[in-house]
Amino acid sequence: MSSPSHAPAAGFDLGTSTIAIVGLGLMGGSLALALKRHDPAPAIIGITRQKATFKTALAGHTIDVGSDRLEAARDADMVVLATPVRTIVRQLGELAEIARDGATLLDLGSTKRAIVAAMNALPERLQAIGGHPLCGKEVTGLGAAEAALYQDKMFVLTPSARTTPGARAAALALVHAIGARPIEVLAERHDRVVAAISHLPFVVASTLTVAVAADVEDGELKSQLAASGYRDTSRLAASDTDMMLDILLTNSENVADFMRQFSRAFGELADAIYDEDEPFLRERLARAALVRRQWKAPDAE
Amino acid sequence: MSSPSHAPAAGFDLGTSTIAIVGLGLMGGSLALALKRHDPAPAIIGITRQKATFKTALAGHTIDVGSDRLEAARDADMVVLATPVRTIVRQLGELAEIARDGATLLDLGSTKRAIVAAMNALPERLQAIGGHPLCGKEVTGLGAAEAALYQDKMFVLTPSARTTPGARAAALALVHAIGARPIEVLAERHDRVVAAISHLPFVVASTLTVAVAADVEDGELKSQLAASGYRDTSRLAASDTDMMLDILLTNSENVADFMRQFSRAFGELADAIYDEDEPFLRERLARAALVRRQWKAPDAE
Repeated sequence: MSSPSHAPAAGFDLGTSTIAIVGLGLMGGSLALALKRHDPAPAIIGITRQKATFKTALAGHTIDVGSDRLEAARDADMVVLATPVRTIVRQLGELAEIARDGATLLDLGSTKRAIVAAMNALPERLQAIGGHPLCGKEVTGLGAAEAALYQDKMFVLTPSARTTPGARAAALALVHAIGARPIEVLAERHDRVVAAISHLPFVVASTLTVAVAADVEDGELKSQLAASGYRDTSRLAASDTDMMLDILLTNSENVADFMRQFSRAFGELADAIYDEDEPFLRERLARAALVRRQWKAPDAE
Repeated sequence: MSSPSHAPAAGFDLGTSTIAIVGLGLMGGSLALALKRHDPAPAIIGITRQKATFKTALAGHTIDVGSDRLEAARDADMVVLATPVRTIVRQLGELAEIARDGATLLDLGSTKRAIVAAMNALPERLQAIGGHPLCGKEVTGLGAAEAALYQDKMFVLTPSARTTPGARAAALALVHAIGARPIEVLAERHDRVVAAISHLPFVVASTLTVAVAADVEDGELKSQLAASGYRDTSRLAASDTDMMLDILLTNSENVADFMRQFSRAFGELADAIYDEDEPFLRERLARAALVRRQWKAPDAE
């Protein structure tokens, strides 16, 4: 642990604090809405390059102060970065100059190694902890934001050598205030696990969409007959491209590993179908069905 | 068209007819429930090897007569086969002896070429038309059946040389009675299209489940952190193994074709991620997102 000389008291008082949220899309906007429901609610500074967006948020009383400049974060006790991963890394560098002494920096990025590395390079006068709430949707923007987005969802915190007890307490206060369920995981392990359960599903869904559309001859009939199976399996393909690019490029080794696992298993299945190898197919499909049926989402309806 | 000498009148009167449903799982059970809501409702003979199942259906007044023998279909004006594809092919052969003159045979199988071929081999005294309602769920059994399963869903009819106007009219009367939307497609084209929009999503979901579970080290954390993305992309993996085996093995060429398309596109994506080829990735992901966003399910909520 680094020096806690500038750390806030371990019991972070959310209601009397000022929180800057950088990025007012689905994640940042929903965070602002959720925090505004907390009683007492913190003061919220909303920061986004899009003036129209912070004006909308101001008009809806989702934020108290709006700005298109990161410098507006200088008055915050806590700065939450809700931008794409590579933007977060860049903004952490800028906040090294901007943020006030003892401020806690938290992010909502979907990969954590690059971000925690950037956090570890921050000056000692700042607190920092990585965060990743598991509550994506394939829609984006402030218009899709909702106060209940984080309710009962897992919220991974990735502490590092840089994380003081004060930073952890501030992050936990925020996680609890929005109704999410905190879990601490090291950044390296987090990135390996989400490569499997989040990034692999995305590349699979994206490729499914491309493969189905490749044969244009029956395009209209496919569109008519595609039902809930295609709908659900391909849903993630509609995810925001900029966000997913940042995720894949900051977790490329882990994603490539799991893509290799997938390709191997997919090739075996294709061979068995081509060869009409019924015993192999039965064993493989039954095993997959069992694994899937035994899995219960933490937030299962 | 074959001789219509034994065909029923073109305006099939569902309310005064007797319909045998073979197989009382999700599809057959839901069909019985939906038909019983029709006013006037047809008499329904429920046939399944499981005595406990038809006894449950009898007790719930879902069927009027129950039997564990296919011979019970001899009194039906229409016989609907709601069993796995290869069972349907076998039962069509048996019904050649059992079904009464002029009876219409319809099936609900998910692939159609093998079934239509078996229908074309039936004696002229019987009517036949293939059917495939697009409304699967990954749950099975009479307990999961619901009267609204077919409501507003597409119901493919695959006529053949064997299909008279009378058989078509009977099938359409049933499709309309259960609130589904009929569409006529030739069996060969149907099988190619569903390989893309239904069977490929299944093999992709099944493989995803296997690939994610392959690395057992982080099994519990994966299970905890997996959220709606994994849930939806992998949902079809829980489909009934017997049913899916029959589907894949009676449509293996088409499925293998689309699996090759998928593998090629997936390999390109994996290479681009490994090489961190941002321009290629951006183009590919954006194209997939666009295709997916433009698709609207016919039964979209």
